[in-house]
Amino acid sequence: MIQQQPKSSLSVGVFDSGVGGLTVMREMTKLVPHENIVYFGDTARVPYGGKSVETIIRYSIENAIFLLGHNIKILVVACNTASSCAIDKLQQIFNIPVIGTIIPAAEKAIAITKNQKIAVLGTRATISSGVFQNAIKAQLPKAEVTEIACPLFVPLVEECLIEHSATKLIIKEYLAVLQKKEIDTLILGCTHYPLLRSLIAQELHKDVQIVDSAVTCAQEIKKLMENHQMQNRQSHIPEYKYFVSDDPEKFCKLGHFFLGMAINHVQAVKL
Amino acid sequence: MIQQQPKSSLSVGVFDSGVGGLTVMREMTKLVPHENIVYFGDTARVPYGGKSVETIIRYSIENAIFLLGHNIKILVVACNTASSCAIDKLQQIFNIPVIGTIIPAAEKAIAITKNQKIAVLGTRATISSGVFQNAIKAQLPKAEVTEIACPLFVPLVEECLIEHSATKLIIKEYLAVLQKKEIDTLILGCTHYPLLRSLIAQELHKDVQIVDSAVTCAQEIKKLMENHQMQNRQSHIPEYKYFVSDDPEKFCKLGHFFLGMAINHVQAVKL
Repeated sequence: MIQQQPKSSLSVGVFDSGVGGLTVMREMTKLVPHENIVYFGDTARVPYGGKSVETIIRYSIENAIFLLGHNIKILVVACNTASSCAIDKLQQIFNIPVIGTIIPAAEKAIAITKNQKIAVLGTRATISSGVFQNAIKAQLPKAEVTEIACPLFVPLVEECLIEHSATKLIIKEYLAVLQKKEIDTLILGCTHYPLLRSLIAQELHKDVQIVDSAVTCAQEIKKLMENHQMQNRQSHIPEYKYFVSDDPEKFCKLGHFFLGMAINHVQAVKL
Repeated sequence: MIQQQPKSSLSVGVFDSGVGGLTVMREMTKLVPHENIVYFGDTARVPYGGKSVETIIRYSIENAIFLLGHNIKILVVACNTASSCAIDKLQQIFNIPVIGTIIPAAEKAIAITKNQKIAVLGTRATISSGVFQNAIKAQLPKAEVTEIACPLFVPLVEECLIEHSATKLIIKEYLAVLQKKEIDTLILGCTHYPLLRSLIAQELHKDVQIVDSAVTCAQEIKKLMENHQMQNRQSHIPEYKYFVSDDPEKFCKLGHFFLGMAINHVQAVKL
C-alpha cells in the first residue's frame, strides 16, 4: 500500500508572466520560510499586461496545469494581470486553493484608508478589468478609486532603469492625475512595481500609505495555511524550483534582482 | 479539371511579432501597389526582441505555416528579430521565396557608406545574433560596425511616446556610445524604429545617412518580383487581410499609426 504524502509537505506553486512574481516569492520566503516553492515564469509569452482577457485566461490555465503536475497544495497567481482576469476561472476549474494578488491588496487598502480616496496602479489589462475598483466599492461604496494604467513600468523595471531620469519622468506623468485627488492610500497593483516604490513615493504626499500587492499576497498565503493547518513542519529546509518557458539564463540574472537572492537550477519547459 | 491559379495573382504573406511589420507593409503599398497582402501579427506573444533564438524560431515557423495556408507566393519576415534568428531555417523548410529585413538593409549600408563606419540599432536578440555585423563584414572586412541594443524603443513606440522627453533621454543614452565613432551610416534595424527616426536623427551628425530596414525590405520584395515575373497585373486593386493572435481592436488602433491608413476586418486566430 502506498502511503499518501501528507498535504502539508507538498509545495506551493507560484506563477507569473515572468520575473515579477518573484517579489511575491521574496515575501513568502520571509513569511512562510519552511515551504517548498515551485515557481513558473512564462517568459516566452511575457508580458501579459497588454493582452486580451481570453488570451490571459488561456495562458493562466496552461501555467496552472503545469504547476499541478508538480504536486502542489496551493496555487498562487503572483501576477496582478492574471489575477484580475483569470482567478475566477482558475478557482472554478481546479480543486486546490487558488490565491491571487487583488483581493488581499484591496482588503488592506480598505482597512487602512481614512478618507476613502484610494489610487491603484496596474497594467492596462488589470485596470481595464476594474477588479480593484469593484473589490473596494463592494465594501466601501462611497470610496473614490482612481485607477491608473502604467504600461511602461514593466519594461522599465525589466531593463533595470529603477533610478533613471526617464523612469522619473514617466512616473511623474502617470501620477499627475493624482495631484488634486487627496488620496491617502495607493496600491502597487503589479508585482513589478515594488522595485519602483521609492520613486513612486517621491511623487506622493508623505502621508500616503502604499500597499504592496506582493506583501499582502504573501500574508494571505500565510493566513490560509495557518487556518487550514497546511504549513510544512518548522524543521523543514525549503526547496525552491524554478521553471520558465524561455531562456533560463536571462531569468537567473534578472530574477536575482527581484527575489533578492541567487537563483540556481532554472529549467526551461515548453507549454 | 481545376485550373491552377496563376502564381502572380497569389498574395504576399507578411508576418511580424506585432504591429512593427506594418512599416514594411506601408512601403509595400507604395512600391508594389497591386499586390494582395496577408499580414499576420503575433500580438499574443509580442515582443520577440528579448526572447531566445529557439523560441523565436519556433514562433516564426508557426507564423509561416499559418500564412502558407493563405495561398502566398512570397513570405516576408517583416521583423528584424525573427529575420536575424529564423530566416535560414525558414528558407530551408519552405518552398517559396522568403525575404527578411537584414540583408537588404546591410547591403544598402554597404553601398552608401564612405568611411566604413556603420552603426546598427536593434532589439537585444537582433544585436546578439551579430547578423548585421556578419553581413557587412562579409563584404567590407575592415568596416567598423557599432551595434547597439535598444530594448526600450519597442515599448516606447507601442505606447506612442514618439515625441516624449523620456524617449529623448533614452535615445540619448543608447546613442551616447556613437559620439566618438564618426559613423556616416546608421541602420534602423527594427521595424518599429522608423517611428523614432526624427528623434534619432537629432542625436546624429547631420551628414549621417539613415537606412530604414522597412524601406529596403520593400525594395527587395519589388526587385524579386520583377526579376521573377511574379507581379500581379497592373490593373489589380489590391486586397489587404489582417490576422492577429490577440485582440484585433487594439491592433486596429495602434496599427493605423504604423501603416498610415485605416485597418479594417482584422481576424483573431489561435496559433
